[in-house]
Amino acid sequence: MEENSKIPETEIGTLGEFGLIEHLTKDFPLRNPQTKKGVGDDAAVIGFGDKEALVTTDLLLEGIHFDLRYVPLKHLGYKAAVVNFSDIYAMNGTPKQITVSLGISSRFTVEHIEALYAGIKLACEIYGVDLVGGDTSASVTGLVISITCLGEAASDEIVYRDGAKESDLICVSGDLGAAYMGLQLLERENKVAAGSGQEFQPDFSGKEYILERQLKPEARKDIIELLRSKGIKPTAMMDVSDGLSSELLHICKASDTGCRVYEDKIPIDYQTAVMAEELNMNLVTAAMNGGEDYELLFTVPLTDHEKIKDLDGVRMIGYITKPELGCALVTRDGAELPIKAQGWNAFGHGA
Amino acid sequence: MEENSKIPETEIGTLGEFGLIEHLTKDFPLRNPQTKKGVGDDAAVIGFGDKEALVTTDLLLEGIHFDLRYVPLKHLGYKAAVVNFSDIYAMNGTPKQITVSLGISSRFTVEHIEALYAGIKLACEIYGVDLVGGDTSASVTGLVISITCLGEAASDEIVYRDGAKESDLICVSGDLGAAYMGLQLLERENKVAAGSGQEFQPDFSGKEYILERQLKPEARKDIIELLRSKGIKPTAMMDVSDGLSSELLHICKASDTGCRVYEDKIPIDYQTAVMAEELNMNLVTAAMNGGEDYELLFTVPLTDHEKIKDLDGVRMIGYITKPELGCALVTRDGAELPIKAQGWNAFGHGA
Repeated sequence: MEENSKIPETEIGTLGEFGLIEHLTKDFPLRNPQTKKGVGDDAAVIGFGDKEALVTTDLLLEGIHFDLRYVPLKHLGYKAAVVNFSDIYAMNGTPKQITVSLGISSRFTVEHIEALYAGIKLACEIYGVDLVGGDTSASVTGLVISITCLGEAASDEIVYRDGAKESDLICVSGDLGAAYMGLQLLERENKVAAGSGQEFQPDFSGKEYILERQLKPEARKDIIELLRSKGIKPTAMMDVSDGLSSELLHICKASDTGCRVYEDKIPIDYQTAVMAEELNMNLVTAAMNGGEDYELLFTVPLTDHEKIKDLDGVRMIGYITKPELGCALVTRDGAELPIKAQGWNAFGHGA
Repeated sequence: MEENSKIPETEIGTLGEFGLIEHLTKDFPLRNPQTKKGVGDDAAVIGFGDKEALVTTDLLLEGIHFDLRYVPLKHLGYKAAVVNFSDIYAMNGTPKQITVSLGISSRFTVEHIEALYAGIKLACEIYGVDLVGGDTSASVTGLVISITCLGEAASDEIVYRDGAKESDLICVSGDLGAAYMGLQLLERENKVAAGSGQEFQPDFSGKEYILERQLKPEARKDIIELLRSKGIKPTAMMDVSDGLSSELLHICKASDTGCRVYEDKIPIDYQTAVMAEELNMNLVTAAMNGGEDYELLFTVPLTDHEKIKDLDGVRMIGYITKPELGCALVTRDGAELPIKAQGWNAFGHGA
């Protein structure tokens, strides 16, 4: 880096992940008329006649995004693929193709990589996606996984982040905080195992759901199909990867709105609550900021209330407001707490 | 990796990069009718009506693919983008969009990453490509760059690797071996600098061309446009990234043919020859196996001989044969040496 080290120094952490991306990409003009949407949503949108191509990509690094002491490689492969599919569904599209690039350090064998690919293959089978390319290389340290997913959607079907309007209902699928509590459980058992002899067997009984949410999440293809079958097109949508707080702020910033979300409406599974109790952690914080839920967060016009209120697996949690009201969580006793992004941040500035 | 370490062990190197990819991807069926071509060419091909989308991806890892002691970050960004564009041109397509994912370790500052992006931006400007997304994360060690490029082409314009026919002429653009000799020069000067005081100034005069070929390669957009303007559509095409030998074998294997290439026809620049002499290295080996040339290797029907023979920047180097004749280099004295892939291999089995 001799030639590179003369320039002044600003620590990456001062900008954070989203700040860094925005900072770096703000000067890139879009030149091609086919590029309908570049940086700044779950996926890019590229026009091909009456169909649009959607593109999303994720980089997963060992020691940052996953810990192979407690994540089986097959599960890792499955999850790495599914989190990309989730981004395409979050645009109201259908994932169709992926490329998989791997950096592999010398401690990995062919059988390790086969296990990883077995997980990717299972995900491709279940979601009907084709593996179409990639790149494989040695790595000096650890495993590097870069997956790009292409999807498609009719032009008038795509749902962006910026379409939420005042009085829209805010909805979320499934439940939140479970993947985060699953991670806490895995980390606790791993510490116990490290401190005990080889005979240690972790006890996961009664905690299967939160473990599965962490190790083998699913993308909500079913919710996308359900909404379509009921004639509901969200006005804005994202998948919950960094945490509900973070995603709410993204939608409200992009849409120039505020929001009110009710603490007692946030869907939380029983196992999540039990685990939070066991670990003496704040349950609402876990649900709001835990992340890795891969549920769909979306807004619909108030006029869709009748259509949405009895949908299985979808919960209304609040509503969109004017921007000047800001984003707030309404607690059980009626207090309003400003929503802050405290989601997991790979640059270490998260909660 | 406790859960993952029970499976038997096969060293990655026993398969090599191409072997590993083939091994891992052979069981992935293509389910979507839009997926025209998956793994196994410079780019995947995805149908969108009368246009096809092309997709290619590259993973670059510090310590494997680049050494920041002598590669300026801006050049690295430029090259990382251009090598992807080159893959799209090698399909006879036009690059249109890229996604850039970065893993960044703590020794990098915002200014470092800005320099990298400045190079990516310059490449996007020159080639008319849009940056449409990506992912940015902390990394435990070193810089990780993953770029995916999308391109487009009319369905009947795409040129694959597998279309070469007996008696076709083999052509290559530009000259070969220069980027490899540029790398040798950089490594030599770096060693000298490490052994000297701080006052050392490397002497690159008269060697600018080979340095530029290594540090700031270009994709041969101009050759694609030239061929199109002359009404020449190659029967098979690749870009020369791993080395001429390796790419010839790819085309002949995919097309089920053999080939004869003439040593004295291989285009080599004067500076490349001087550097090989200085370092006492075999010049033809550098040109055949050095790689990173990003020139276009293509085949045309013999009937195009008149059209091709006077094209600036294109050299005919041999012809395609029946498969049973194998692939051979015809030396200056008329001997036939079998062509072997000795290109650069990220798993360490290359020359």
